[in-house]
Amino acid sequence: MGGIDGHLRLLDQTRLPRAVFEIDCHNIEQVWEAIRSLRVRGAPAIGVAAAYGICLVGKAALGVSPAAFVSAIEAGCDYLATSRPTAVNLFWALQRMRVLAETAADAAHAEEIAVSLLREAKKIQDEDAETCANIGRIGAELLRDGDGVLTHCNAGALATCGDGTALAVIFAAHRAGKRLRVFADETRPLLQGARLTAWELVQYGVPCTILCDGAAAHAMKEGLVQAVITGADRIAANGDAANKIGTYSVALAAAAHGIPFYVAAPQSTFDLSLSGGESIPIEQRPPGEVTGVSWPAPPPELEVFNPAFDVTPARLIRAIICERGLIEPVTAERIASIFATAPGK
Amino acid sequence: MGGIDGHLRLLDQTRLPRAVFEIDCHNIEQVWEAIRSLRVRGAPAIGVAAAYGICLVGKAALGVSPAAFVSAIEAGCDYLATSRPTAVNLFWALQRMRVLAETAADAAHAEEIAVSLLREAKKIQDEDAETCANIGRIGAELLRDGDGVLTHCNAGALATCGDGTALAVIFAAHRAGKRLRVFADETRPLLQGARLTAWELVQYGVPCTILCDGAAAHAMKEGLVQAVITGADRIAANGDAANKIGTYSVALAAAAHGIPFYVAAPQSTFDLSLSGGESIPIEQRPPGEVTGVSWPAPPPELEVFNPAFDVTPARLIRAIICERGLIEPVTAERIASIFATAPGK
Repeated sequence: MGGIDGHLRLLDQTRLPRAVFEIDCHNIEQVWEAIRSLRVRGAPAIGVAAAYGICLVGKAALGVSPAAFVSAIEAGCDYLATSRPTAVNLFWALQRMRVLAETAADAAHAEEIAVSLLREAKKIQDEDAETCANIGRIGAELLRDGDGVLTHCNAGALATCGDGTALAVIFAAHRAGKRLRVFADETRPLLQGARLTAWELVQYGVPCTILCDGAAAHAMKEGLVQAVITGADRIAANGDAANKIGTYSVALAAAAHGIPFYVAAPQSTFDLSLSGGESIPIEQRPPGEVTGVSWPAPPPELEVFNPAFDVTPARLIRAIICERGLIEPVTAERIASIFATAPGK
Repeated sequence: MGGIDGHLRLLDQTRLPRAVFEIDCHNIEQVWEAIRSLRVRGAPAIGVAAAYGICLVGKAALGVSPAAFVSAIEAGCDYLATSRPTAVNLFWALQRMRVLAETAADAAHAEEIAVSLLREAKKIQDEDAETCANIGRIGAELLRDGDGVLTHCNAGALATCGDGTALAVIFAAHRAGKRLRVFADETRPLLQGARLTAWELVQYGVPCTILCDGAAAHAMKEGLVQAVITGADRIAANGDAANKIGTYSVALAAAAHGIPFYVAAPQSTFDLSLSGGESIPIEQRPPGEVTGVSWPAPPPELEVFNPAFDVTPARLIRAIICERGLIEPVTAERIASIFATAPGK
């Protein structure tokens, strides 16, 4: 957004990697729709888009009194806050814009407040880029040369105004000369991993393998993964972290294999008002996202890890239901005895 | 297959539920292709299809001497064994057919052996149906009225010649009047859960919700799941069980939530020659299965569970990489202190 009479240009992430297509938002309704339908997504990027969305409210209200202008801004903040419920960066950015407008309410003209709001939105954007760089620098130390690094969803440049959060760490380690292979969970239902993370990594020259979400635990068991890094959408005061559906499953698998699970996130993702993760609202999305999927051919540089099966260790199986009877507990002795004693075929 | 000059008719499972389409196999190459490309799938069903495939070899060799006939059968067994590597029922059924042919090698005419082979294939089929019924009866006791039961992939009627293995248990409990809701993991990459399990359950009148594989752990945390039941493709002597990719991840999540994880499988799925699961060969499938997916609209009776996020508890997170520094260990105290002491924005 060039000036207070400008508009917001966004890359439409729902069309990547098939098409690199930009959309122009001229009013707050368009920004709301872009956030709601994941054209712009990723917790930090949503925050920045919302801040500019508030500037569009200001543009539409330029002719009114400062008090009426601030009221319009407040209504705009309330409206954009309804676009998505989980990522807290949205509410954090809106709160910054609201507070700025309210403290500037005694300005002589609405234009002055509009200029301040645009400056604040740009500041949020610039801070985010700097934050990504710092996260990358801090996190890169955690990765070793030769590591396989698994990530879930997309916490890259597309999700922020910089290099990303989780991917900033990977990019920084890559730039430092560490040879990494990234295992990108495809991330059903909307395939942000296969579509967006893989696209970013291929552009960056980082070797990347995509895999179905269900294959992550098997990849860990096969020794392919030495670290897991994801982003987050909201982190409670105790560290419980909400992130794209499937992240919890990955964390359980990492724990079972003694693989460190890292979350990369800016301060704006923390919600210290919540003592634990059970208070984080979880968005329910439409069924059509699950039942209507299709996705285009990925870049040819991409590897695919596609084992058809995995092995569940006996200790995780409560019982095996066999036509000869219930095998419980599941031990070699019990299995041998049921086949030794039951009537043979 | 009506007689030794008949052919094998299979339901093409790759086209379900969009189309109910049968294919006719007139020779062993067609059976090999049907198994390889998952037109017929599910460990027990593969075994039965392979047995009939051997009968087609016999049909083609009817004019030769008994010795030459048996050689042809042996070659056919070797060939069909290359169709898929993991499910042991394939090798088990082929071994039954091979042993039968070899012990009948002193017959006067090849036709006699062919008749015996067809009888053996029908016997394998009939036994499988009975086995499914027994598994259902034994397993139904494990489910309680009102349970949410999660399953992965398809271990239903389509995978067997009867009611299935895991689904036989669910169907038997349903017939006994227990009110169940089945959570069917969609099962990427080929969506056997969303396409096949959901289709079977809807036909049977069992309430069914499909969910992305990554959402299973979250569904468990939400208290929706009281038991997990899957089939298996091969079970080692110690009980380690190979099954569709993603099963291991589900078992880890079930263990983390104290939810019983059951495997339903016939004796023919056990491979007592392997002491543990690490010896089970895991099939690698083509990348296109992952990158080329699309699937048709499901039946309207189907519910979809589509949360966009889940929460990973702090205890599973090694560190949070924040622009303010590394938060490790992840505790409320450490989070509070890093934001209290670092320079504010």
